[in-house]
Amino acid sequence: MRREVLLTPGPVELHPRARLSLSGPQLHHRTEPAREAFLAVREGLRSAFGTAGEVLLLTASGTGGMEAAVRGLFSPGDRVLVPVSGKFSERWAEIAEAAGLLVDRIELPWGEVLDPEAVAARVGDGTRGLFLTHSETSTGVLNPVAETVRAAKAKNPDLFAVADVVTSLFLAPVAMDAMGLDAAVAGSQKGLMLPPGLAFVALGERALSALRPAGYYLNLARELESQQKGEGAYTPAINLVLAAREVLAVLLPVLDEHLAEKRGQNERLYALGERYGLRPVPAQGGSPAPPEFRSPATAAFYLPEGVAYRDLAGAFLRRGYRIAGGQGPLKGRIFRISFMGYFAPEEVERAISAFAAVLEELLGP
Amino acid sequence: MRREVLLTPGPVELHPRARLSLSGPQLHHRTEPAREAFLAVREGLRSAFGTAGEVLLLTASGTGGMEAAVRGLFSPGDRVLVPVSGKFSERWAEIAEAAGLLVDRIELPWGEVLDPEAVAARVGDGTRGLFLTHSETSTGVLNPVAETVRAAKAKNPDLFAVADVVTSLFLAPVAMDAMGLDAAVAGSQKGLMLPPGLAFVALGERALSALRPAGYYLNLARELESQQKGEGAYTPAINLVLAAREVLAVLLPVLDEHLAEKRGQNERLYALGERYGLRPVPAQGGSPAPPEFRSPATAAFYLPEGVAYRDLAGAFLRRGYRIAGGQGPLKGRIFRISFMGYFAPEEVERAISAFAAVLEELLGP
Repeated sequence: MRREVLLTPGPVELHPRARLSLSGPQLHHRTEPAREAFLAVREGLRSAFGTAGEVLLLTASGTGGMEAAVRGLFSPGDRVLVPVSGKFSERWAEIAEAAGLLVDRIELPWGEVLDPEAVAARVGDGTRGLFLTHSETSTGVLNPVAETVRAAKAKNPDLFAVADVVTSLFLAPVAMDAMGLDAAVAGSQKGLMLPPGLAFVALGERALSALRPAGYYLNLARELESQQKGEGAYTPAINLVLAAREVLAVLLPVLDEHLAEKRGQNERLYALGERYGLRPVPAQGGSPAPPEFRSPATAAFYLPEGVAYRDLAGAFLRRGYRIAGGQGPLKGRIFRISFMGYFAPEEVERAISAFAAVLEELLGP
Repeated sequence: MRREVLLTPGPVELHPRARLSLSGPQLHHRTEPAREAFLAVREGLRSAFGTAGEVLLLTASGTGGMEAAVRGLFSPGDRVLVPVSGKFSERWAEIAEAAGLLVDRIELPWGEVLDPEAVAARVGDGTRGLFLTHSETSTGVLNPVAETVRAAKAKNPDLFAVADVVTSLFLAPVAMDAMGLDAAVAGSQKGLMLPPGLAFVALGERALSALRPAGYYLNLARELESQQKGEGAYTPAINLVLAAREVLAVLLPVLDEHLAEKRGQNERLYALGERYGLRPVPAQGGSPAPPEFRSPATAAFYLPEGVAYRDLAGAFLRRGYRIAGGQGPLKGRIFRISFMGYFAPEEVERAISAFAAVLEELLGP
């Protein structure tokens, strides 16, 4: 099979420590070494999420983690607010609706950065929940989550604020408790540079008190009971847990430097694109948003006039790289290119050179 | 970390082809090679399950697959029948109850083989579903699923029969359509010799017609739509899908021989244990059941008088092998030893020698 390097915003190039771990023999999940790894990963992730609460590991994609959080913290009939400005914020709304919640959607143009005051203006006394998307992978926006939660809780301190940090964890600063979040969800196949298959659900102290049993498989109350002892309620993807421990061991001690590096790599992509006149997708009031609202998870540009996504992606593929297109209303209108996975410095240089060559081929000189 | 060989009935020793595949680089799930693998695995499993219907892949443990089947095929208030004779048949009852179904439990002593006529006697006109466990991993029983479904459907042809084949698929003959089953569920970490993390839900033609949208993540109706095109509705554990394709490619062409080999290996364990006077767990009317009701997935014995499980398991561990104890009411009363995973012929001999040495140490001469 031809080997493509993934410049996609998940799944991503695996961390070498993860690959080594995944090539190993099977470990039984109900053994002491497995329990140690399980607890070490929960503890490492607690630090990464920035919470004094708990992190639960689910054998599921990030979407499964999102649904578990919705069903564990809310009941049918609860009123919740969901600003929708991309595919993943839309997913919060869909999951909440499927769980029987009364969803007040704030519809924004895809790519628009959240305005904390505009969100807060829609919070009422009856609003029990607010669902946010920290890094909106479909548009490349990094939303001002802390400011939005602060404004929303100023109007209703009782609401529960829950964020999708799937592509901000390990890529942008995440500090759940300090950001006012009661819960947050991430997955293995993004900033942690592992294969897909594991979701992480972080619960702060208020969320832990509010947790209720819900369903069977995606039941956080039951998982909490088992996981405090280092075991999943059901057979967990223990191979991914072991790989996560390996990557966390090297990543956590240098997390700040790692975040700076990831942001720097992403800004190089934006700088290169802008040099060729490409327009970034993240927007504020319809104009390109300031760099602090660009997610380090991916650069996202509108396609240049007259260039089809197929041709652009094909030019990358001929050079051995896979990029991503747009989703939903942005399909065929944007492209995304990401250093979210593992890239040694020389691999970053090679990929940037390839991006430059593609732009030169399609737009230059 | 000290390396133990797993004689546990899941997770199991991995197939070498699976390990090789899992050590590879990340493949993006929305690419042509990924779609090809996804469709090949669905097709291979369709043949393994023995259905003209469809097999769906879920990123979840087998329990997640069981819940998806329950919620996709039944509605709150539906009356269903669940014979309970071990941990996994009890799980069907728990999942069905959590989904709001009205569950009629037939409580049997754990380890007892199902009596088709006794089950059928409890089927009424209002019985919408029957949940069975083909290989009851907690007791080592292989239940007469075909006979039970036939007797039950003779009384009510409209009921939907669903089976857990988690530890019978690739270990004992499974032929879903011919057995009268409308749906069946299995997982990756058993007879397919992969790590945990992928559930398989097979749906026959009646089940496909009856499928309804349910929930969000474990929504078979939505998965069916995506998976017919070779994609999961959400990011799937594509690395496990690729590994599954590798193992299926070598297993399916020789499946009959493989099943005979697995049964033979398991019968050697029973023969050895019985030579030392151990009593097998599978029972019919309270006496040891005939060999055809012993699941090839695991041998299960009552602990000999005066031998604690801890001591027996420790004697295996000193020789580098991990076995499994009892669950639920059988905890501390039985032990289980399994060749479910990958064992080269000389590895089988080594493990059997170790079992003999353990029995000699604890019971002999």
